[in-house]
Amino acid sequence: MNYIGIDIGGTSIKGGIVTPEGKIIERFVLPIHHELTGEQIISQLGDMINETLAKMGTKPSDYLGIGVGCPGSINSETGCCDFSNNLNWHYLPIVKILKEKTGMDARIANDANAAMAGEAKFGVGKSYHNLVLVTLGTGVGGGLYLNDHLYVGNEGKGAELGHIIVQMDGLPCTCGLRGCLETYASVTALIRQTKEAMEAHPESKMWDYVEHDINKVDGKTAFETSKQGDETALAVVDRYENYLTVGLVNFCNLFRPDAIVLGGGLSNQRDYLIQGLEKKLQATHYGFTGTPAVKLLVSNLGNDAGILGAAALYLD
Amino acid sequence: MNYIGIDIGGTSIKGGIVTPEGKIIERFVLPIHHELTGEQIISQLGDMINETLAKMGTKPSDYLGIGVGCPGSINSETGCCDFSNNLNWHYLPIVKILKEKTGMDARIANDANAAMAGEAKFGVGKSYHNLVLVTLGTGVGGGLYLNDHLYVGNEGKGAELGHIIVQMDGLPCTCGLRGCLETYASVTALIRQTKEAMEAHPESKMWDYVEHDINKVDGKTAFETSKQGDETALAVVDRYENYLTVGLVNFCNLFRPDAIVLGGGLSNQRDYLIQGLEKKLQATHYGFTGTPAVKLLVSNLGNDAGILGAAALYLD
Repeated sequence: MNYIGIDIGGTSIKGGIVTPEGKIIERFVLPIHHELTGEQIISQLGDMINETLAKMGTKPSDYLGIGVGCPGSINSETGCCDFSNNLNWHYLPIVKILKEKTGMDARIANDANAAMAGEAKFGVGKSYHNLVLVTLGTGVGGGLYLNDHLYVGNEGKGAELGHIIVQMDGLPCTCGLRGCLETYASVTALIRQTKEAMEAHPESKMWDYVEHDINKVDGKTAFETSKQGDETALAVVDRYENYLTVGLVNFCNLFRPDAIVLGGGLSNQRDYLIQGLEKKLQATHYGFTGTPAVKLLVSNLGNDAGILGAAALYLD
Repeated sequence: MNYIGIDIGGTSIKGGIVTPEGKIIERFVLPIHHELTGEQIISQLGDMINETLAKMGTKPSDYLGIGVGCPGSINSETGCCDFSNNLNWHYLPIVKILKEKTGMDARIANDANAAMAGEAKFGVGKSYHNLVLVTLGTGVGGGLYLNDHLYVGNEGKGAELGHIIVQMDGLPCTCGLRGCLETYASVTALIRQTKEAMEAHPESKMWDYVEHDINKVDGKTAFETSKQGDETALAVVDRYENYLTVGLVNFCNLFRPDAIVLGGGLSNQRDYLIQGLEKKLQATHYGFTGTPAVKLLVSNLGNDAGILGAAALYLD
């Protein structure tokens, strides 16, 4: 039986009909009109799902249900988006509205947790029992797949991987704490670290890379320039990887996962990033000698990760 | 059906017959003679189990199996003690020997993970779905009970809760890393912090408490003296609780557990410790607003925790 996967983003909602093998056989997109209420938007989504089913010559009972991945603070137990900063939603009962509109079952998870389900069921994590997904983007996020199941914790609000403190009294974090992993290992942090290094090193080739405009610095600047042997860039990458390694060591010691999957924008660096991290992880011996090795993998679901992850909630 | 619970310690092995309700209806103890090999000791243990069964007028098929909690690096999948520093055991196939000797099924886990199972099945954690056990003793240890099951990770070697880095480039840890939670929040760390404060404050009442012998400082010194209002002791307790809170916040943000169970020697401070920690945890909002509350509990299994935890491996 097929599933519906729904990927709620900041500007649009992407949906798809997904087979049990993880193939998307039909797609639809609903632009989000921010002048509408959350109820109205999800109601529109319900209509669009119904239309898609009709168009395919199928009926609700032909599907196991609708899986939804949504940003913000999601209560998987009540099926609500308790809070979404970007969408300005408060206690929006997404599952209830979709069930009423479509007559189908529905499940919801935080988008990062849904992505973890996608990696475990359809992605590079497919053959493993215990996985940690670490997404490196504006923040550090991710999910936990433990004992062959997605782990989301009480109300579905766990797995805030970026908000473990790795430096007591360290840099202030957007969450209100200090020294969270996110403040050292996100792409935002990498950009800050890159700019600081450039300002201290006017001779760095990174200045050429950004055409002498520091506002053009992004997550690629240090990585790409380091490949040309620029010492300042190499030092930025080295330091950034050290920070990230602290997070990975913590996850290794806590979960002893079979594999850690890296996702998010920075995972485009793939082999280059993995190579550096593997060396550093090995050097720290994961904290103890004689422990099982942990594989480092890179997400391979690309743009479909959201839809597939949401649908994968029905495979868990 | 009853179980056999086996608690392997540094100087003796304690065993018991445990009912499904967590009552120990028969006990036995095997002193460990360190001149014997590991194989010989476990073989003796098998004999003692057989004798106990005979004495009770029961046979192997009257029991679900033998649960074993063992210190060191335990591979739950192969049933081996891969390495135990104190016992000097290397790749000792405990499960295999016990099965052969008794004709019963057997399971093994690291003692901290077994203790987590005990708290979840027979202890204060009984009614919860997601739990973290944090034991405060010579080191910081514990276990994870997630999605209603004990989580041990690859080879059963996960849940090294004390070896998450909370201070990059921090104090050296016995594990070889730097800045592990254990180096700040263990009783060993508390004793070090107490001594340092006493040396800086000759006027502290803690000197009276230890009869002016700094070698008598233990985990109780600062806590007990702080109850008398001694400022230096209060500052030690406050700082220690801050360190511990960092670990607890990390576990909250990662697992959003229903409850955290405190165990180990320091949990004797019970209400006093909990009170201080609850205030500090609340002040940090667990990293985010609007998140479900996490209960702080204290282990109540006492000296039987080891036997009950080992038996509980059969309830998982």
